[in-house]
Amino acid sequence: MSKYERPNILAMQGYTSGEQPDDDNTSKLNTNENPYPPSPAVQAALTNIQISQLRTYPQPTADPLRDAIAKRHGLARNNVVVTNGGDEALRLALTTFVKPGSSFGIASPSYSLYPVLADIHDANTVEVALADDWSLPENFAAVLNAAGVELTCIVNPHAPSGTLTNVATMAALAKNLHGLLLIDEAYADFIDAEAGYASAALVESHDNVLILRTFSKGYSLAGLRLGYLLGSTDLIDPIVSKTRDSYNVDHISQVLGLAAFNDMAYARQTWKKVRDEKLRLQNNLSQLGLHSPVSQSNFLLIEVPANAKLNAQTLYQHLKLQNILVRFFNSPRLDDKLRITVGTPAQNDALVEALTSMLT
Amino acid sequence: MSKYERPNILAMQGYTSGEQPDDDNTSKLNTNENPYPPSPAVQAALTNIQISQLRTYPQPTADPLRDAIAKRHGLARNNVVVTNGGDEALRLALTTFVKPGSSFGIASPSYSLYPVLADIHDANTVEVALADDWSLPENFAAVLNAAGVELTCIVNPHAPSGTLTNVATMAALAKNLHGLLLIDEAYADFIDAEAGYASAALVESHDNVLILRTFSKGYSLAGLRLGYLLGSTDLIDPIVSKTRDSYNVDHISQVLGLAAFNDMAYARQTWKKVRDEKLRLQNNLSQLGLHSPVSQSNFLLIEVPANAKLNAQTLYQHLKLQNILVRFFNSPRLDDKLRITVGTPAQNDALVEALTSMLT
Repeated sequence: MSKYERPNILAMQGYTSGEQPDDDNTSKLNTNENPYPPSPAVQAALTNIQISQLRTYPQPTADPLRDAIAKRHGLARNNVVVTNGGDEALRLALTTFVKPGSSFGIASPSYSLYPVLADIHDANTVEVALADDWSLPENFAAVLNAAGVELTCIVNPHAPSGTLTNVATMAALAKNLHGLLLIDEAYADFIDAEAGYASAALVESHDNVLILRTFSKGYSLAGLRLGYLLGSTDLIDPIVSKTRDSYNVDHISQVLGLAAFNDMAYARQTWKKVRDEKLRLQNNLSQLGLHSPVSQSNFLLIEVPANAKLNAQTLYQHLKLQNILVRFFNSPRLDDKLRITVGTPAQNDALVEALTSMLT
Repeated sequence: MSKYERPNILAMQGYTSGEQPDDDNTSKLNTNENPYPPSPAVQAALTNIQISQLRTYPQPTADPLRDAIAKRHGLARNNVVVTNGGDEALRLALTTFVKPGSSFGIASPSYSLYPVLADIHDANTVEVALADDWSLPENFAAVLNAAGVELTCIVNPHAPSGTLTNVATMAALAKNLHGLLLIDEAYADFIDAEAGYASAALVESHDNVLILRTFSKGYSLAGLRLGYLLGSTDLIDPIVSKTRDSYNVDHISQVLGLAAFNDMAYARQTWKKVRDEKLRLQNNLSQLGLHSPVSQSNFLLIEVPANAKLNAQTLYQHLKLQNILVRFFNSPRLDDKLRITVGTPAQNDALVEALTSMLT
């Protein structure tokens, strides 16, 4: 503790991420990484990098990657800012649009980083509880507007439940909110095409919508730190030209991200495999009495029945002893549940086997 | 312009970096990059990276690299935080230690990013003019203390002049300042060993000193975005555990940075070559009447005499037409000068030749 620390920083708690063990023996089903490796095109791009290219500063705004992203979403370069992971995108939205001392809105429960970023920024977090089925309550916008919220973050598909809110509901929310709406689509790559979720046009129809995407999950590049925001030119421009660190995305990430993005066929294949495995895993867990809502993400939120032999926290601990990591949140509404990332078929089978021996 | 933008962001100007042309024909003597490529050990480390390692999140705090950095400076892991370039380190110092609305101190002229970061943070920048020889004026601490400055950034060796302030002066400044002192040592790798500059112990003797270092210049890795801060545990801990983005440094940067750091012999060799070339270039430019102060960095600040055939701005423009980029600052005390990065011998010879034909 230093007397030089800002009072709000001194008072706050830092973010606690899921465990990241170094060993190769752990089945990591706790931080929603893609179980499949990045595209072979990424390896080829990496192999082609000459370190002499690292001597000079990177392209400051990652324009080749911005153009590819814009094209995919039917937008223009000026609707895109590339960031050092999705976390930087969230921080920049606060930095650019929220005055310290004013209010920031979230649904509860959701990504536990949101209130931490607000604390760093010295903004007040206004939390509105989701309904029992994890949908937005009817008075959501009204409560946030009454509190003078300047920016609201909604993760869609929702974490930790995996449930999806449709685009029409998001559009209505954007219309009703007085402040900005940031739709955090960290898991949107895993949405079934049949769900018909296509949100990018919202940034053209609404001047208060930002959409966040990441390469961490859909493109198996969590280790690279690459994300982006979509928004109207008026929202994106101050981030690109003012609040972003001048060279926020390094040269290698720009090159590898572009390679991953250009091999959409490979990425789609991993998304389909994850979706198929998710249904199989969900079915197998249900047969153990561990039910979960329909998930459009790459994880399941299973509920451990009150009459089960072991409760959620104990199951988490016992699984960890067997080198299987899942996520347990010791908080209201979640402390009888486990969030389980969909792994490879072998990882999922091992998980079901372990749970079977613990619960039956 | 968006009605959602914070008033301070709306009012401010973004940072203007030196030009970063994409072509290979330009002699880039404008942004102080190292003219020599990174160590071959970096290429070997890059070749060994398997993209499957990018599937998962990176080690959150870059601990293997922190340990190597700590060891080199005779400090402990808890005295080090690794950042996404030096720019992130500067931003984090403001985020962690400066209240929005309060004051931030700099010497003038210096790195033009400093006031931009303060504007983003909504802090007031207090500028104190350096003496004619670019040294700190005697009343420097008194003026900043009177203004209630919470954090002061000093680049040492100074940019854009290259002059060095000794450690005893820095220690006295730290003692006299009521707030924090961040010593930005972006160019310190190029200091001649004979100057006896060794500052790391200041973070043990002073609870208000942060030291910034970067891999961009000394290790030829500007494209990678890697820097670090040294400080007392009390200053470093809130940055590591609270204000930093959770995974701020990607896996590849951690691995390549460590490889560069472990080949200190190679790095020292490039620093010596740059120092030797700097003296030769300085001598050749002096013979053209373009004098510069003693520089302990990898650049020279030459003054164009009032009676020269062309002034500084015109020389900058004419050099650019010949694909030689140098840095011209259109601001008081600098608009009769050019900042020239020391290049390879061939680049330096071409520069001198071009200037000779323009001025004689």
